[in-house]
Amino acid sequence: MDQELHSRMATAIAALSMDAVQRANSGHPGMPMGMATAATTLFTKHIKYDASTPDWPDRDRFVLSAGHGSMLLYSLLYLNGYPGWEMENLKNFRQLNSKTAGHPEYGHGAGIETTTGPLGQGLGNAVGMAMAEAHLNAIYGDDVVDHRTWAIAGDGCLMEGISQEVIALAGHLKLRKLCVIWDNNGITIDGKVSLSDSTDQRARFEASGWRTIACDGQDAMDVDRALEEAKTSDRPTLIACQTVIGFGAKNAGTAKVHGSALGEEGVAEARENLGWTSEPFVVPDDIAAAWKEAGSRGAEARKAWEQRLANSDKAEAFEAGLKGDVSAAVAALADHAAKAASEGKKVATRKASENALIAINGALKTTFGGSADLTPSNNTLTPDMDDFSDENYGGRYVRYGIREHGMAAAMNGIALHGGVIPYGGTFLVFADYMRPSVRLAALMGIRVVYVLTHDSIGLGEDGPTHQPVETLAGLRVIPNLAVFRPGDEVETAEAWACALERTSGPSVLALTRQGIGPVRKEAGENRTKRGGYVLKDMDGAKATFIATGSEVDLVLEAQDRLAQEGTPTRVVSMPCLDLFEEQDEAYQREVLGEVPRVAMEAGLRQGWDKVLFAFGGRGDFVGMKGFGASGPGASLFDYFGITAKAAADKVRELIGKD
Amino acid sequence: MDQELHSRMATAIAALSMDAVQRANSGHPGMPMGMATAATTLFTKHIKYDASTPDWPDRDRFVLSAGHGSMLLYSLLYLNGYPGWEMENLKNFRQLNSKTAGHPEYGHGAGIETTTGPLGQGLGNAVGMAMAEAHLNAIYGDDVVDHRTWAIAGDGCLMEGISQEVIALAGHLKLRKLCVIWDNNGITIDGKVSLSDSTDQRARFEASGWRTIACDGQDAMDVDRALEEAKTSDRPTLIACQTVIGFGAKNAGTAKVHGSALGEEGVAEARENLGWTSEPFVVPDDIAAAWKEAGSRGAEARKAWEQRLANSDKAEAFEAGLKGDVSAAVAALADHAAKAASEGKKVATRKASENALIAINGALKTTFGGSADLTPSNNTLTPDMDDFSDENYGGRYVRYGIREHGMAAAMNGIALHGGVIPYGGTFLVFADYMRPSVRLAALMGIRVVYVLTHDSIGLGEDGPTHQPVETLAGLRVIPNLAVFRPGDEVETAEAWACALERTSGPSVLALTRQGIGPVRKEAGENRTKRGGYVLKDMDGAKATFIATGSEVDLVLEAQDRLAQEGTPTRVVSMPCLDLFEEQDEAYQREVLGEVPRVAMEAGLRQGWDKVLFAFGGRGDFVGMKGFGASGPGASLFDYFGITAKAAADKVRELIGKD
Repeated sequence: MDQELHSRMATAIAALSMDAVQRANSGHPGMPMGMATAATTLFTKHIKYDASTPDWPDRDRFVLSAGHGSMLLYSLLYLNGYPGWEMENLKNFRQLNSKTAGHPEYGHGAGIETTTGPLGQGLGNAVGMAMAEAHLNAIYGDDVVDHRTWAIAGDGCLMEGISQEVIALAGHLKLRKLCVIWDNNGITIDGKVSLSDSTDQRARFEASGWRTIACDGQDAMDVDRALEEAKTSDRPTLIACQTVIGFGAKNAGTAKVHGSALGEEGVAEARENLGWTSEPFVVPDDIAAAWKEAGSRGAEARKAWEQRLANSDKAEAFEAGLKGDVSAAVAALADHAAKAASEGKKVATRKASENALIAINGALKTTFGGSADLTPSNNTLTPDMDDFSDENYGGRYVRYGIREHGMAAAMNGIALHGGVIPYGGTFLVFADYMRPSVRLAALMGIRVVYVLTHDSIGLGEDGPTHQPVETLAGLRVIPNLAVFRPGDEVETAEAWACALERTSGPSVLALTRQGIGPVRKEAGENRTKRGGYVLKDMDGAKATFIATGSEVDLVLEAQDRLAQEGTPTRVVSMPCLDLFEEQDEAYQREVLGEVPRVAMEAGLRQGWDKVLFAFGGRGDFVGMKGFGASGPGASLFDYFGITAKAAADKVRELIGKD
Repeated sequence: MDQELHSRMATAIAALSMDAVQRANSGHPGMPMGMATAATTLFTKHIKYDASTPDWPDRDRFVLSAGHGSMLLYSLLYLNGYPGWEMENLKNFRQLNSKTAGHPEYGHGAGIETTTGPLGQGLGNAVGMAMAEAHLNAIYGDDVVDHRTWAIAGDGCLMEGISQEVIALAGHLKLRKLCVIWDNNGITIDGKVSLSDSTDQRARFEASGWRTIACDGQDAMDVDRALEEAKTSDRPTLIACQTVIGFGAKNAGTAKVHGSALGEEGVAEARENLGWTSEPFVVPDDIAAAWKEAGSRGAEARKAWEQRLANSDKAEAFEAGLKGDVSAAVAALADHAAKAASEGKKVATRKASENALIAINGALKTTFGGSADLTPSNNTLTPDMDDFSDENYGGRYVRYGIREHGMAAAMNGIALHGGVIPYGGTFLVFADYMRPSVRLAALMGIRVVYVLTHDSIGLGEDGPTHQPVETLAGLRVIPNLAVFRPGDEVETAEAWACALERTSGPSVLALTRQGIGPVRKEAGENRTKRGGYVLKDMDGAKATFIATGSEVDLVLEAQDRLAQEGTPTRVVSMPCLDLFEEQDEAYQREVLGEVPRVAMEAGLRQGWDKVLFAFGGRGDFVGMKGFGASGPGASLFDYFGITAKAAADKVRELIGKD
């Protein structure tokens, strides 16, 4: 290693970072300045990548879990010569519509492997990526899949609870190709880490089966040694990389350099301290050249891999997996739905989901399932699946443990890695535990499927801590998340098809514990795709019922009751409000009709008003008004007044016949 | 210890638990059966309590973090003779309106210290209780406050990430009177813990500064030894209590006994194995008497404490603290609001909140503040507060670290303990990280105040990961949570007064990063109390604007613009939709008026339709349609069309003048 050159390459990162933050007068200079040396060592000597081909499937993955240090990543991507990265992008740091957002945003530019910023999430993504790699390596062999996952995490990442979930999971799974570099600078926003934490992080990681190595993050040779050692580990590795936050700045080593620009004077002083004489946003030619060389360091390896892939008999399967085509599963689901429609069974939709998964997993070998320790409740395991474990990375069912948040963050990493399609289960009410990761999946627009069972008071005796009432509304408000609550086995199969085909974002399947339906006598066209549709109409309908899931049964019964009194009505099944809202106005008007509307759902009203009052309509809602209660499920529907009678009464009231 | 008697006392718990689960045909027999021996040792020899006086302030606190084992707690409360606990309650386990809900529900019966079930939460509550005790002990001395906190946690509690947050916090704070008994039975729902976890839990806890002790949970003498040792610790203690889940049952030691009734045959077999010959729900007299004696074991200690308190010069202050009276703070806030109204300054509401806190904390010594490492951003620290630390338990500002979830769960414990009123800060968007604990605060109906700053795209450059758009709607849907979004310094003071006076549930203050207002020229009556009110009316108003927080400024400007065109309008400020909805219909109608309504908020629409369409009204919404973006805050309002012009245009459109 040419230490002087290496040092100047690192300083280029520090300088670009402080310059960009200064110009934006907003951002976090401390982390990129402190980690510049370590990152330079990592990128010039250890990570396998080829900047010219950022989507090379067998590249190492790099996750900046401490996403506020985004200028570290942007500097690296620019210096390495990733396509589309120009100095102009760095100059526009944190400006509207620039690819250099305040925190790294997946999809904004080549080389940004995931969106980070909310702390701890990147760690979870990295664990998921390493899981995907281990699995695909087992399936396709070293020739096709053999790469590492590297993450840089800060103290905040390590303090967030999600970190423990994924550390424990990674240690249990012995993900040896995962290396987390902890930017151990001892500083958080409030001041010293010692204000709030005394944890021996190395001992903590070791307790969960990690190898740990310490190094001096300001010493390139020492970092190099640590990274080299990490590559020989038989377990995931934590590198406790001791650094000085804001290295080079006057207030280096304090919270003052964490989250705001250094100021003109501060930048000038740091320039001097770092021996950096270039103007802002100027990188000397020799440094620029050295970085470009680093960026192309992996070109040979990439070409060799392409050759190996071309010669591999697994190339076709591998590439199909990467494409994530689900047509075989969708076809199998259509067959399954047709069979279900003809059989017309009452079934818990969690069981219907299991039946759908049997069809899916039989047709598609790239689904990667799991549950946060509720396998027998979520019905997420199908007979042809083996457990994914350190003894069988070829298995495709993950025992995530009681770690909803870690599961969701790992699933994001799995989806981002590609080659497999993750789904995972827990109780609907515990969506709260994983909400930050669900939000990120929606923001990134990636395909993750959440199988969330026990979807209402219908779960019964476990009581209000386990009964979602606000959860559906709480999930529906997340942009770009599709929430499905199917009403029988046919709709469950359709919802699964929608979720699999939805490559632009995550989907929730909210499923009952108790038996419901059947409500659909026919299958063929996937009617769930339109979000809502007329399930059962009557001539001269005087009101429209709209319901989801277990309440479709109830409004069908209400329709019958009213019909017997000579009051015809229409029943609309609306398994996905999000998709319904995406339909054109004509369709929405046609489905909802111009008569009073009664929506019914065993949840809270929020989110339904828009349906009730759309296009000048009027209507009312039958559902929950607060938390649930412990008692047998059927009795709770009566207790809370979510009954066919209540639905019928509401219609009578609205049409003036009560 | 009379080991034979002790053993039969323990078996009484096991028998009642399996009988109750069997009768309900629903519930979790495994945990109570496995932990019966350890719990009997704990309750008969170690916990300081007097069943006759369940609210004795200096009692030890007991938290069943593994809440699914509720029959353990119910059995104990019944056997100890807590007021209101009869055999009938156990027979009605999991039935509607019984106090013996599926999971322990705070408020349902004497001796239930907190609501548990969602895993890991109880651990956080216990840490909060121990924090409150340490603080009050420092303030009032050993004579008045000197008690321990005990928690029973399962593998699930320890796997949830929240556990790491509170373990690290408790270790850092050296909470020596906290003891967690880990029901180390090696079983989860999916099967063996080893399916998903290999963590050395003792090493993990030790890494965060805990003492750990192992014991055989089926051996009362060994449990006794461990508990005795725990009481001498200078740190929090984990007892790794090895047990056999479902001890006595045929399938003991397997997942089969975790979560469902044993069946008639299984119960009979367990009876035989345990040597328990009594009929279901019958406890032999000698056992019942021995338990009642245990329940009154602490009576002398309680009386001695009452005497000490009576003699203490701190009695009055202590009792006032327990009552949680906030009138002095509310009066100080009224003065502050009056001053703010007269000064009429533009100010970030996070800064306004700091000013309010200066008034509050000056008047009230029982507030207990903190932040999840965003102190300089949340403005939660006032000059008269010291840090709460192991060197200064008298301090009342908590450095929670980057642990939002742990903070929220600990605040629940602090509020439940009583004597102090907790508030804590983070960014609004990170409410997602603590949502499970917020839900429990709402379910329990306890006073906790969340100071959530950076409440919209107005925070600017940090971008969509940090910009709440769905967060307000997502919080408003939680029953019994009051969400305040004040529009200037006066409303911020009013919101704080509402939050402090709201003893029936938690409150969120959503506060801006950027300067806004002033919108209120007068203070006096707390207008925020009604949720929404007419801020500025005009004769013959043709439309009603409704806004919160930073958008009140914008609709006032829109009102001006329209007035200049000869279109009078009304502006309603609605800092709390929840409280507005609680007002009588006449008031709501009066405020909203009968003209078209335009609501404006820099968030998503969900939740606003109800306001727009209430009482047959019509209207529209100006706000966000999806995630935010990174850029300077002011530019984002223009970019997303959240402007005075857009609000005015919407009125023109609605009244047919566009």
